[in-house]
Amino acid sequence: MEKPLTIDLNCDLGESFGVYKIGNDKEMMKYVSSVNVACGFHAGDASTMRKTVSLALEEGVAIGAHPGFPDLQGFGRREMNISPAEIYDITLYQISALKGFIEAEGGSLHHVKPHGALYNLAATNGEVAEAIARAIFHLDKQLILYGLAGSRLISEGKKLGLQIANEGFVDRTYTSQGQLTPRTDSNATITSEELAFKQAMKMVKEQKVVSITGEEVFVEVNTICIHGDGEKAVEFAKMLKRQLMEHQIFINSIKKDGSY
Amino acid sequence: MEKPLTIDLNCDLGESFGVYKIGNDKEMMKYVSSVNVACGFHAGDASTMRKTVSLALEEGVAIGAHPGFPDLQGFGRREMNISPAEIYDITLYQISALKGFIEAEGGSLHHVKPHGALYNLAATNGEVAEAIARAIFHLDKQLILYGLAGSRLISEGKKLGLQIANEGFVDRTYTSQGQLTPRTDSNATITSEELAFKQAMKMVKEQKVVSITGEEVFVEVNTICIHGDGEKAVEFAKMLKRQLMEHQIFINSIKKDGSY
Amino acid sequence: MEKPLTIDLNCDLGESFGVYKIGNDKEMMKYVSSVNVACGFHAGDASTMRKTVSLALEEGVAIGAHPGFPDLQGFGRREMNISPAEIYDITLYQISALKGFIEAEGGSLHHVKPHGALYNLAATNGEVAEAIARAIFHLDKQLILYGLAGSRLISEGKKLGLQIANEGFVDRTYTSQGQLTPRTDSNATITSEELAFKQAMKMVKEQKVVSITGEEVFVEVNTICIHGDGEKAVEFAKMLKRQLMEHQIFINSIKKDGSY
Amino acid sequence: MEKPLTIDLNCDLGESFGVYKIGNDKEMMKYVSSVNVACGFHAGDASTMRKTVSLALEEGVAIGAHPGFPDLQGFGRREMNISPAEIYDITLYQISALKGFIEAEGGSLHHVKPHGALYNLAATNGEVAEAIARAIFHLDKQLILYGLAGSRLISEGKKLGLQIANEGFVDRTYTSQGQLTPRTDSNATITSEELAFKQAMKMVKEQKVVSITGEEVFVEVNTICIHGDGEKAVEFAKMLKRQLMEHQIFINSIKKDGSY
Repeated sequence: MEKPLTIDLNCDLGESFGVYKIGNDKEMMKYVSSVNVACGFHAGDASTMRKTVSLALEEGVAIGAHPGFPDLQGFGRREMNISPAEIYDITLYQISALKGFIEAEGGSLHHVKPHGALYNLAATNGEVAEAIARAIFHLDKQLILYGLAGSRLISEGKKLGLQIANEGFVDRTYTSQGQLTPRTDSNATITSEELAFKQAMKMVKEQKVVSITGEEVFVEVNTICIHGDGEKAVEFAKMLKRQLMEHQIFINSIKKDGSY
Repeated sequence: MEKPLTIDLNCDLGESFGVYKIGNDKEMMKYVSSVNVACGFHAGDASTMRKTVSLALEEGVAIGAHPGFPDLQGFGRREMNISPAEIYDITLYQISALKGFIEAEGGSLHHVKPHGALYNLAATNGEVAEAIARAIFHLDKQLILYGLAGSRLISEGKKLGLQIANEGFVDRTYTSQGQLTPRTDSNATITSEELAFKQAMKMVKEQKVVSITGEEVFVEVNTICIHGDGEKAVEFAKMLKRQLMEHQIFINSIKKDGSY
Repeated sequence: MEKPLTIDLNCDLGESFGVYKIGNDKEMMKYVSSVNVACGFHAGDASTMRKTVSLALEEGVAIGAHPGFPDLQGFGRREMNISPAEIYDITLYQISALKGFIEAEGGSLHHVKPHGALYNLAATNGEVAEAIARAIFHLDKQLILYGLAGSRLISEGKKLGLQIANEGFVDRTYTSQGQLTPRTDSNATITSEELAFKQAMKMVKEQKVVSITGEEVFVEVNTICIHGDGEKAVEFAKMLKRQLMEHQIFINSIKKDGSY
Repeated sequence: MEKPLTIDLNCDLGESFGVYKIGNDKEMMKYVSSVNVACGFHAGDASTMRKTVSLALEEGVAIGAHPGFPDLQGFGRREMNISPAEIYDITLYQISALKGFIEAEGGSLHHVKPHGALYNLAATNGEVAEAIARAIFHLDKQLILYGLAGSRLISEGKKLGLQIANEGFVDRTYTSQGQLTPRTDSNATITSEELAFKQAMKMVKEQKVVSITGEEVFVEVNTICIHGDGEKAVEFAKMLKRQLMEHQIFINSIKKDGSY
């Protein structure tokens, strides 16, 4: 008998700020196994963090820190030329702040996934990737590092001995080299839900995607990112979960030893 | 034989921000037994926090978090009408962030002392005092709470079972009720070094001060605050330490059980 | 023949920030005669300001600056203990910034209305009221000052010779002294649209309201504030405009000489 | 008889923030003819702006706006990937805010010089340069644009018909192409005061510098930047002014028609 398949579904949450509300965190948490909580630099604030952590603990999902650039107005999506040493500092600061909220509620921090422009930068810039990995490692060696599948962030995390999780996207297309098609390309995103589900199944079952040039490409994926904003986010998450379950794929967060 | 006397000397540090430098942290640490490190809301930033923690660990002083109002321009000295629930949140956030830097370096957080307008508000406002005490208690019951001697913050900390430290000032005068003379009064501060030393000795030896009206007043003091800014700060700290030692008074941080 | 009646309807707009969107500015502008644009301290950002100004110029409504406390997280609703001198500074800064956006598009700044906690503080605190009035006066003596009807802000504006506009509320109740019932009271707000319309008519036609204790009270009102947030905001604005017009009341912004 | 020579000396000032003080603004103003005042994004705050403007008006120096990236912690020295449209917005916002302070005191804004990473980016990036030039042009066509001598910012300003001022540096070396030696090079800065004075004379008298490779290179310079921070800043400014005057070179700000 074949071993049943399992995948982690993760979602960025806790992105409201003061009176400004975005996302439908409570609903999204029903359909994912791990969440990445904004830490007050690119989004989120102390009160939002407490509430999001509380909701996540109730729902039983794995909680991760989602550190970003200090740029609320740009939502952490604008690259900033910050030195690796300072990136170490702002990463450690943000992770620690979230860790405190979780531990004050009796839970424990599960993983770290950088946000937006910091995520993208860490995928290719070795010094930045190393700075982030070291900040995580110094705070708690048991934390799991989520990064773009096959990226520099993943390899730097491995070097330090961190448990890592390769992240795949079901609403983004891939090149024949197994990399995300740049957003500047017209065919970067997958808008058809059907195609997104198909890509998810292929990722999980075969660790492959069909590239924009039509080839089957290997992509190791341990966790799939789904988006929490947008009107259809909850509906999509619900459908994806159903599709995966119908294909006997379990949805579970990753354990410290890499198993689900 | 009399039991030798001991007192804690504490100082607010880590208050630089970006290119803006204030204080002479490295020097001040030689003359105090505990330091209160700004956490990025009213002063300090992630890089300053890392450097300050690193210096403090080298010097071997006890490290505390120094949370304040989110008001860098006002240096946390302008009261903000923030709800107790939100004060809980911003306190927990700031303490946790600093705790992370300390633990990443292999140390441990020792105490918490609110800053500026938050310190003053917590001295008299029960709801605010309770919110701060609870944030500390939820994060780590072993943390020591520093507050104005005899204040509401101290009593709320005690209620929760936290170890507390009553703070006294040697450069401020006291009323006949044993309270600080309001800063709006012309005789609020003690500018003579000699008088400051005298007040320090009396505080430690007799747990008393001479009030502005000339009476001897009881003030329980477990820790004395000395200021790190100003040109003469280091010189004053050095002299105070010497004076205390010449009077056979040891300078040591408070242990979790309240002893030195 | 009776002189036809006219009233100004104003609304707070331009309160989005970065990716965070609130309000339905474009729609609201169809039903009001003047708008108060957030200036980047409690809400709004440079890009939102430019877009809001551009929309307002297209729609032909009078544009005012809406300065607030520097507290994005609290949306300017949390009082801060800022000195009158500094309030002068932050008011002048914010008004000037908005003025630039308007003039760059060929328009001109029409009025100033403080926001939230600053508005409330200026209603009773003479020093704060004077600081705000002076900032406006120094920048441009032709600007109209909007303030709570009969408040200290209004009287300080008059002292300097500024044209003022007494603001009334149709969704708030009044005491027998003609003051707003504090929000802490259960009967502070008017939720019935019918009662709100009724209060609007009485305000405009008779310069009176019926207080919570049932008496008719004089309230001089030159402009009525309607809220732009909330799901029913646009619908309410539309209905109020229709009701006023059906009663032969014109909706127009105030001229520099106080006429409509 | 030869026409006497004139040059503008400019200095970045008003960079204090809240309790954080830097620079010796009052002293520096005695030795320069124009000042660039920080506008609250990378440095400065509303109160600092008011005080700096007031000092500059007393001293009679020409006042310019010094807009930068919204990054107080990085002092505007860290490049941010902000779209040209948003750069237009933050430039217009900052200039307008400063303009208000000047006009409230009866003065008028003279020029605009971008700060730090924004200055450098505008020197080579055409879209950014154009965005800044347009913001200035839309606000007031009479403003003078200061930019790196021969840079893209200068050419975009000229295109719009703005009066421009080519800026030269006396404490930086130049390449044989007449460009600043990158700071990453070891010989980028001139630390000898004597060499700095020599470079200043050559710039003003011959519109030339001696490059790091020993060649004489043409550099059109209308204004020389001197730095206001550092211990020796005031002394250097004083000496430079004396040296220039001893060589019959007048120090004066640029007029709207480009003359001194």
